[in-house]
Amino acid sequence: MARTAGSHSDITGPRIREAALRLFAKHGYAAVSMRRIASEVGVQAGALYNYIPDKQALLFSLLKGHMDELLETWEATPQPADPLARLEAFVRFHIRFTLRRAESIFISYMELRNLEPENFVQIEALRGRYEGMLEQILRDGQAAGQLSVPDTRIAAFALIGMLTGVNTWYREGGRLSEEEVAALYWDMARKAVGAG
Amino acid sequence: MARTAGSHSDITGPRIREAALRLFAKHGYAAVSMRRIASEVGVQAGALYNYIPDKQALLFSLLKGHMDELLETWEATPQPADPLARLEAFVRFHIRFTLRRAESIFISYMELRNLEPENFVQIEALRGRYEGMLEQILRDGQAAGQLSVPDTRIAAFALIGMLTGVNTWYREGGRLSEEEVAALYWDMARKAVGAG
Repeated sequence: MARTAGSHSDITGPRIREAALRLFAKHGYAAVSMRRIASEVGVQAGALYNYIPDKQALLFSLLKGHMDELLETWEATPQPADPLARLEAFVRFHIRFTLRRAESIFISYMELRNLEPENFVQIEALRGRYEGMLEQILRDGQAAGQLSVPDTRIAAFALIGMLTGVNTWYREGGRLSEEEVAALYWDMARKAVGAG
Repeated sequence: MARTAGSHSDITGPRIREAALRLFAKHGYAAVSMRRIASEVGVQAGALYNYIPDKQALLFSLLKGHMDELLETWEATPQPADPLARLEAFVRFHIRFTLRRAESIFISYMELRNLEPENFVQIEALRGRYEGMLEQILRDGQAAGQLSVPDTRIAAFALIGMLTGVNTWYREGGRLSEEEVAALYWDMARKAVGAG
């Protein structure tokens, strides 16, 4: 019994999150009811509450899951000691992650407004950690004389904005491969921070 | 009579658009009914239909109005003949416009998904025109030997992404003025396109 319930939970939990992500990305958090998510998953609305206390908890779980995955994947990426090589690794990682998580990125920006204050604070802290990692690379590169920016914090924001913007135009199967796109963005990112 | 109706329309039309912009930006298009917009404006739901045929027309009108204003304001901005000076004018213009139209920018990205196909095509064409103007500046700068990018089209997308991202972090009254922010972004944009 315990095992069956456990297995069921293991499958249903992720399916609820996938359905919620898809529906929030398509219609927006405010327009999607728990009933609709349940119907998408194919369970009774009441059954949803065995997995998640409410819709806010579901949104928070999606946004936190996204940030956790972003941070863990970056931390698991080989990071050269040389700051400029580390910057290149960051740029290529961020482009790849962004292209592969378009829906998560979309709701992570769009639905920040719908997080309750205590949840917003946590997501903002995780974002700050990620931005801080890029800023540290820029500081290290500056200390090593490899690059030069007037404000490392704003440079980190500007680079993340530039890289994340790839989702507004990139379509798979278009004229450029993911690798070619990453190379073009690396060329601009490198120059933008004065590492001509 | 005609004059009174005209005046009334002149006031109510913009108030409907303002209310819709505010509500769409806060809750998302799908979650906001025409009834709610009417209630925000303080008119009967039925009265709304004197001004706008339906919610889709309202969304399209907001997104088209935003793009028209962006294009008209840029076209009215003094544009130096020198390509690099024109690029600087573009960067400063885009930062200023983006900071002052945060809600319009937000729904312009977020609610593209809710445009009906024939409306989407029109908005995409206006965006393409704007991106094309920046691309032309880059091409002119390249021809004049002032800058160098491997792909002017992708460079235009990357720059617009970088500049528009300013809204994700900038708060009025923070440590940097709008002018200082524009100067920092111009420094990076200039270098990004190889105009060190």
